[in-house]
Amino acid sequence: MTETTGYSGSGLVLVKNPHLDLMEEDVLYHLDLGTKTHNLPEMFGDIKFVCVGGSPKRMRAFAQFMRRELGLAGPGEDGPDTCGGSDRYAMYRAGPVLCISHGMGIPSISIMLHELIKLLHHAKCRDVTIIRIGTSGGLGIEAGSVVITDTAVDSSFQPRFEQVVLGDVVVRSTELDKGLAEELLACSRDLPDFPTLIGHTMCTYDFYEGQGRLDGALCSFSSEKKLEYLRRAYDAGVRNIEMESTAFAALCGLCGLKAAVVCVALLDRLQGDQIRESHEVLWEYQQRPQRLIAAFIRNRLRLPAPRRP
Amino acid sequence: MTETTGYSGSGLVLVKNPHLDLMEEDVLYHLDLGTKTHNLPEMFGDIKFVCVGGSPKRMRAFAQFMRRELGLAGPGEDGPDTCGGSDRYAMYRAGPVLCISHGMGIPSISIMLHELIKLLHHAKCRDVTIIRIGTSGGLGIEAGSVVITDTAVDSSFQPRFEQVVLGDVVVRSTELDKGLAEELLACSRDLPDFPTLIGHTMCTYDFYEGQGRLDGALCSFSSEKKLEYLRRAYDAGVRNIEMESTAFAALCGLCGLKAAVVCVALLDRLQGDQIRESHEVLWEYQQRPQRLIAAFIRNRLRLPAPRRP
Repeated sequence: MTETTGYSGSGLVLVKNPHLDLMEEDVLYHLDLGTKTHNLPEMFGDIKFVCVGGSPKRMRAFAQFMRRELGLAGPGEDGPDTCGGSDRYAMYRAGPVLCISHGMGIPSISIMLHELIKLLHHAKCRDVTIIRIGTSGGLGIEAGSVVITDTAVDSSFQPRFEQVVLGDVVVRSTELDKGLAEELLACSRDLPDFPTLIGHTMCTYDFYEGQGRLDGALCSFSSEKKLEYLRRAYDAGVRNIEMESTAFAALCGLCGLKAAVVCVALLDRLQGDQIRESHEVLWEYQQRPQRLIAAFIRNRLRLPAPRRP
Repeated sequence: MTETTGYSGSGLVLVKNPHLDLMEEDVLYHLDLGTKTHNLPEMFGDIKFVCVGGSPKRMRAFAQFMRRELGLAGPGEDGPDTCGGSDRYAMYRAGPVLCISHGMGIPSISIMLHELIKLLHHAKCRDVTIIRIGTSGGLGIEAGSVVITDTAVDSSFQPRFEQVVLGDVVVRSTELDKGLAEELLACSRDLPDFPTLIGHTMCTYDFYEGQGRLDGALCSFSSEKKLEYLRRAYDAGVRNIEMESTAFAALCGLCGLKAAVVCVALLDRLQGDQIRESHEVLWEYQQRPQRLIAAFIRNRLRLPAPRRP
């Protein structure tokens, strides 16, 4: 099987697994859904946008926010629909928008994406756009800045994702949809109260040593070596660092999903390692990608901005 | 700094980071705890056992179970103490036992372990034993069997963990405490209603392609190639497959924590890929490692078995 990235003419999700058609039932174990136990086309067939993010509480809040933004929630009717998910992931709906948490790191997001992509396939969804909204460490940018990823790169600043298949390494592309990134940047012009930019996003397997932090339980390098590494990343075009984007870009690309990554920077890593802002400031930062995605989805659906109280 | 594994004579946790002493405050961001905001020695100084597992609900249930097993919960007084944790991880106490969830995969457990190890260091805990209790896919063993890991191996069946530090790969040992594994096996003799064995545990970065499953969104290999890979793993001594053990063994080993991994097999991967048992059967399987660890902790504390209703 060649690993080509591309969008199908039909707009359907491209599941690339010949074994799936031979299965009588498909249990999406970590989502607690299945083809025999649930009517997936009825439950999910009208989904057009999927938004994923690490924290279950943040995705619940985002679903509530999207319901208000899309005019789907009356007063006193604010709870989002839980539509699946298990103890591992939380899943909510807001009209045509599906919101799912993915936990932290590549393995955790990969499990969710495999099952989500099969879910969209079984539900016969068409023309789905998928966006990861998350938090990240910034690189040479102001805390609170929002980075739209053009290319996800690994810890050597290369645009690749190494997937182990039966003990062998397969290298995959991590390009994201350029048109979608530009469309998102255009939407950001309506949100002038925070800076938004396009840049590379570095994805690591570890938050402490892997991102050059001096404050983990283990640290064998000096502050100078750390800054030298982070400056090399900056010079290679990296503007923020997180832990899911390469796997997300690779899997979505292979399956024909138009994908974007939009993360707020909680700090500038060239200035420090610890996240020390107050809960209130961090909460407002985390809403910035959500506000940008809400503006984007309203634009796509040709909906006006909701009246603010 | 050489990367030696070893236990300190004092029984204290070995944080290997010279920068930590220079920090005025240490914010354990993902646990929502800190050295200035919390009195960590008072909150955690008496902890002797740490049990970690993927799912927050399972760790909550385990803390409730441990309180009953240790005679700490009267009738109608069953709720465990939440003692920290954030939206990312859940943390409960049951007497000298700390129970924490770690999510799925190496990156997720690594973040938690860095902050947990610093927590034990700041709290001046001594002689702490740490055990991961989890679920796994079995290899040539009956579903419901409990595997105590002697050595965690990677997807090439090697006892090593590759950690990227500032873009370079550092190779770490994944040996676990042999005496502790034997002690746990001895405890299992009091639980004759399920099989318990010692074996190697393979740790992968991915649940689908990385573990040779035929039922992911992507699959480029045949059933024969899958079985050939899994049989090679079996021949190398692997008896179960999960997604955290190499990083857990490496980090705990470097920091002087006596560590064990005890996982139940939810299925035999030589027989299939999908987890199809009923919720009730899976729930009972997941209690088996918990029952074994409860017996071990009672033994260590010289407590009798509680009266069963």
